Amino acid sequence: MEQHNHRPDGKEVLLAHGSGGRSMHQLVDGLIVPALANPLLDRMEDQATLEINGLRLGFTTDSFVVDPIFFPGGDIGALAVNGTVNDLAMGGARPLYLSLSFILEEGLALAELERILASIRAAAAISGVQIVTGDTKVVHRGSADKVFINTAGVGLMTDGTRISAAGAQVGDRILLSGSLGDHGMAIMSRREGFEFEAAIESDTAGLWPLVDAMLAAAPGAVHAMRDPTRGGLASCLNEIAQRSGVGMRLQEAAIPVHEPVRGACEMLGLDPLYVANEGKLMAVVQPEHAERVLAAVRTHPLGREAQLVGTVVEDTRHLVVMETAFGGSRIVDLLAGDPLPRIC
Amino acid sequence: MEQHNHRPDGKEVLLAHGSGGRSMHQLVDGLIVPALANPLLDRMEDQATLEINGLRLGFTTDSFVVDPIFFPGGDIGALAVNGTVNDLAMGGARPLYLSLSFILEEGLALAELERILASIRAAAAISGVQIVTGDTKVVHRGSADKVFINTAGVGLMTDGTRISAAGAQVGDRILLSGSLGDHGMAIMSRREGFEFEAAIESDTAGLWPLVDAMLAAAPGAVHAMRDPTRGGLASCLNEIAQRSGVGMRLQEAAIPVHEPVRGACEMLGLDPLYVANEGKLMAVVQPEHAERVLAAVRTHPLGREAQLVGTVVEDTRHLVVMETAFGGSRIVDLLAGDPLPRIC
Repeated sequence: MEQHNHRPDGKEVLLAHGSGGRSMHQLVDGLIVPALANPLLDRMEDQATLEINGLRLGFTTDSFVVDPIFFPGGDIGALAVNGTVNDLAMGGARPLYLSLSFILEEGLALAELERILASIRAAAAISGVQIVTGDTKVVHRGSADKVFINTAGVGLMTDGTRISAAGAQVGDRILLSGSLGDHGMAIMSRREGFEFEAAIESDTAGLWPLVDAMLAAAPGAVHAMRDPTRGGLASCLNEIAQRSGVGMRLQEAAIPVHEPVRGACEMLGLDPLYVANEGKLMAVVQPEHAERVLAAVRTHPLGREAQLVGTVVEDTRHLVVMETAFGGSRIVDLLAGDPLPRIC
Repeated sequence: MEQHNHRPDGKEVLLAHGSGGRSMHQLVDGLIVPALANPLLDRMEDQATLEINGLRLGFTTDSFVVDPIFFPGGDIGALAVNGTVNDLAMGGARPLYLSLSFILEEGLALAELERILASIRAAAAISGVQIVTGDTKVVHRGSADKVFINTAGVGLMTDGTRISAAGAQVGDRILLSGSLGDHGMAIMSRREGFEFEAAIESDTAGLWPLVDAMLAAAPGAVHAMRDPTRGGLASCLNEIAQRSGVGMRLQEAAIPVHEPVRGACEMLGLDPLYVANEGKLMAVVQPEHAERVLAAVRTHPLGREAQLVGTVVEDTRHLVVMETAFGGSRIVDLLAGDPLPRIC
């Protein structure tokens, strides 16, 4: 990782601009969105809600640049399908159709491309989405790193849902569908050649079945939802706290982290709250329905470790505060930069 | 251009796979589409037609890797908007919403990004589309080349249109909306630092107004339509001939090519029929309506040089044949490779 070999002068793009943290928000909120301002983009959700002739559709896009392209538990192909499926699902849209666009580096082995395609096909089948349109570009050796993939997705919004990062209300409970940090630590273990005590696998998965179960269990009870990818759970919670004008209290003891991931994070000096996940969701749920929504999540294999991990509170400073296992508390802030570049 | 510095063994991705010619068809039709096979993708149009609860939508994607990112007449931002707008328009869909995804190389000047954003904003405004969702990734210096952009688009299909590369019928006329080769030669002049006698500018433009006028002038009369980008007019015509099971006869004298472009092509040994355009369309039109559709195209500034340039004929070999100005004829085949890599 050589992200510090150049002195930034504030006039060029830095790796930190891709981090999911404070620098990325500065680039996206400070430069990109104002340049293109319109009411739909300004909502700044992970997906746009289109209303076309009375039909409500979700629409989203993501480019994937993960390094390495193959890692324990998945590859860039599975990630590209699941990432876009999940961005649709987080808005309450049933994923239907994906586009698929490759940027290939000259010299990529066709066998690797075939392996990625097989993985895309499998992930799409599991999530019940069709890849209906695509594009392929090739650039010279050295002008890209093996393969980058963009997927965009169209989904059908579930009737009656109004899920938004601005929707959290004081008293709401915070639900987390499973353990933190598996994807990020799987990438790190592969990238850096670390030998951890136990194998760590990416959690990459399509989350629509969880969302479908949650929305059916208590219609209207999910106020906000995100999949904590780049920047981890900490970044999602801070964004929702800011956008909703509330604070959050988390109980450290309730947040599941698998032992090998915890050990790997300690070894590398990383906090699992900031490490990327690719098969987890967090939701802000109306308190009287929280247990029922939790039960619905737990019926699905992807959600069997789900927990209620905190509460939305009044706080004019919009802080996310962790109550530690030892009775103390600490502020969970946005990171400025990126501990793990090219994680997705 | 160093695309020949490596000996291909048939097992890896080559620059030619991105060419719009025969190699690209082999990669896309032979490997990518079969791996993902489904009825919508199998139609192999530049856009998919989605039918969701009775609503017919166009959906398309393109990644842009053009080098250089700024060139006479445009930049990668304008190209990214116009390219996706045009892929929607070519299927008869009114472009409505775009997604926008950046892959940025660490070190890109923020001033260049701002210039690209301004260009995106202007192109979107001209075509009346909104950019509603996006993504930004950053990769290490040397892992990408300045900036790659993906746009995906959603549009509303015009009632009653059934435009398809498989729709050409014997007797149909071939309409071309303007001169060939301006985009490709503008890129070449900037990339290679050539000084041509006259400045050549990219023709990048959104074509929906032309299509809208054509469809209104004679509903149902446009059987097939494409914007001749990578691989140029020759590649479009060959694809339609193959897919429709017909032959084509072109009149060389009718095909407009601006003098500076013709001169530059001659100097570089290129045929304008194979050079990329980013603001032109070709359409296969029912003969009895061809003149009316031509007149509709010519009312718009982007179509004032439009011509009828050929006819669809019976031919079991599905050949595209050019009748030259000197009374001879020659076969216009697909190219194997790519005279101009990274043209869009």
